Amino acid sequence: MLNFLLVHGSWHVGSMWNPVVTGLEKRGHQGRAVTLAGHGKGVNKAVTHDDCVQSVLDYAEEHDLKDIVLAGHSFGGSVIARAAPKLGDRLKRLIFMNAFVPENGHSIMDEVPPHYRTMFRAMAGESDDNTVIVPFNIWRDAFIQDADLELAKASYAALSPEPFQPFDTKLDLEDFYALTVPRSFLNCTEDTALPPGEWGWHPRMSGRLGLHRLVQMPGSHESIFTNPDLVAQKLIEAGRD
Amino acid sequence: MLNFLLVHGSWHVGSMWNPVVTGLEKRGHQGRAVTLAGHGKGVNKAVTHDDCVQSVLDYAEEHDLKDIVLAGHSFGGSVIARAAPKLGDRLKRLIFMNAFVPENGHSIMDEVPPHYRTMFRAMAGESDDNTVIVPFNIWRDAFIQDADLELAKASYAALSPEPFQPFDTKLDLEDFYALTVPRSFLNCTEDTALPPGEWGWHPRMSGRLGLHRLVQMPGSHESIFTNPDLVAQKLIEAGRD
Amino acid sequence: MLNFLLVHGSWHVGSMWNPVVTGLEKRGHQGRAVTLAGHGKGVNKAVTHDDCVQSVLDYAEEHDLKDIVLAGHSFGGSVIARAAPKLGDRLKRLIFMNAFVPENGHSIMDEVPPHYRTMFRAMAGESDDNTVIVPFNIWRDAFIQDADLELAKASYAALSPEPFQPFDTKLDLEDFYALTVPRSFLNCTEDTALPPGEWGWHPRMSGRLGLHRLVQMPGSHESIFTNPDLVAQKLIEAGRD
Repeated sequence: MLNFLLVHGSWHVGSMWNPVVTGLEKRGHQGRAVTLAGHGKGVNKAVTHDDCVQSVLDYAEEHDLKDIVLAGHSFGGSVIARAAPKLGDRLKRLIFMNAFVPENGHSIMDEVPPHYRTMFRAMAGESDDNTVIVPFNIWRDAFIQDADLELAKASYAALSPEPFQPFDTKLDLEDFYALTVPRSFLNCTEDTALPPGEWGWHPRMSGRLGLHRLVQMPGSHESIFTNPDLVAQKLIEAGRD
Repeated sequence: MLNFLLVHGSWHVGSMWNPVVTGLEKRGHQGRAVTLAGHGKGVNKAVTHDDCVQSVLDYAEEHDLKDIVLAGHSFGGSVIARAAPKLGDRLKRLIFMNAFVPENGHSIMDEVPPHYRTMFRAMAGESDDNTVIVPFNIWRDAFIQDADLELAKASYAALSPEPFQPFDTKLDLEDFYALTVPRSFLNCTEDTALPPGEWGWHPRMSGRLGLHRLVQMPGSHESIFTNPDLVAQKLIEAGRD
Repeated sequence: MLNFLLVHGSWHVGSMWNPVVTGLEKRGHQGRAVTLAGHGKGVNKAVTHDDCVQSVLDYAEEHDLKDIVLAGHSFGGSVIARAAPKLGDRLKRLIFMNAFVPENGHSIMDEVPPHYRTMFRAMAGESDDNTVIVPFNIWRDAFIQDADLELAKASYAALSPEPFQPFDTKLDLEDFYALTVPRSFLNCTEDTALPPGEWGWHPRMSGRLGLHRLVQMPGSHESIFTNPDLVAQKLIEAGRD
């Protein structure tokens, strides 16, 4: 029995993992999903990357979680990487699912291609509350291209603006890179949220993990919506002993 | 209902898409395939790249096509890229299927690895009519390795010599790169007609499309022969709203 | 009817191909597997790369094999590359299955990433008999991540120390690179025994083969244990005319 704690990415909230949790549970495992500070509709967006990390630490402590298989998707990778050293003995394994594994001292902005940097900085400046949102045409074609239009629209409608501060903060990952806790990378092979190649998820991010377990599945960046049962199956392959 | 116009690659003719068209039609879509100038057996091979582009424009006009999902395979990518700006409102989306997306001012010859360049230039010079043909051993192992020998031979027998001028002409793609029409890239993951890596289709060609929808399927460069029904299915995923 | 001769990699012996051989035979082909000199439990480990090559040559001669489809896995690639020129007319095709295709004059050590080099050299120095063994955590996560823990442990228990001399010898591959015998590369797409990217199997090793047939399948480096029947099927696709 594996004990998953699932950390969502930008624009998402924890409940979007629900169909994945169902897939974990029906295979005999436990799945929980936390919602990070500043994420969701109608919440205070003036949060820091530290606040997001604290959401994970608080959740683990409140539920007194042990042997955590801690999975982070996308932006969530930067969060689990910083939470991991502080979880100590509670942590069993890390899973990065098409997730950021930032270099020590880099921000998320440093890790995305220049055209995303320009777009996000302009959006944040134009917003009332220093937030950014992925435009629908990018969502539909580069994030969730394996959905039909109906699902692409419905999932987009559920997104909420992302606080920009956590994107733009230089992250101290020295403690993360000193860790030896086992780690996996789950790669959805059609994920183009980061463009394949020089700026891609894999092997750029995965290669920073040192010894790790690679698991792959077909699917877009948003496979949690388009194929949640296969995500559950692959999280188990990524998380098992 | 999507309205596909399919543009073949070198050595091919439009009717080779027929099994793909069947797959499109049985899923409720329309599929048409044009044969480019200078392509086919017993036709005049003294044609230019402009002539090939004109074949697409003429076909669209003659059939008064609207909302075209214009798909180009291999060499056909260079043709649809140049036809696109001239199709104006007729065009809905472009699909590049393991296809050339040449840099502005490049020829097809500029985009293929040096050993192909040497081979094609020598072949053209030795031919009576400035044409080139892919040798069978390259066809069998690098183009259609997922076929059995019988299909490899039968499909090879249907090929016809390719006019060399369209390979060797510098192409003006300035208008193409100014377009914002939606575009997709369909990548057959075992396609080695261009060698994977530095000279490969993906992400080299796909990356030039800017925001695009990536769809992948297992298969060789000649999946239209070896798995036409899956090609149809993936063209629909690439072409839908 | 194809006549396969299968050459194992480091730490392995010929009988580990048995489930693959079953898959070949049930599809009407012949499969044989040789055990290389110095490989296996309780055998003399003081062998050279030449000795390993000689094992293949002796086997082919003793069994008077003709039309050999010679497949090498991992380290076995370096062995079949050097055996090939000496097999002459006996040889029909080479298959490199996530295998080394060393550059002329390189050792296996030259072809692996620096962290492996450091580890292997230290291990060999600390051993009684100049051998190395893959540590279990690397085996489990980077070699056989698609197995459950039970199979990972059982297969690990069957491994035996690898003579280090064949890893550390500069290999003369001039005759290999002059050969024109047809060749294929079988790539298991989740193989991380060499880390994907700069030091990966594909397209780094495959690209050295010049014209070759690429066949891919999902699976780890140790797919002969985790999915032997699919390995058999893909070897046939790689080996057929």
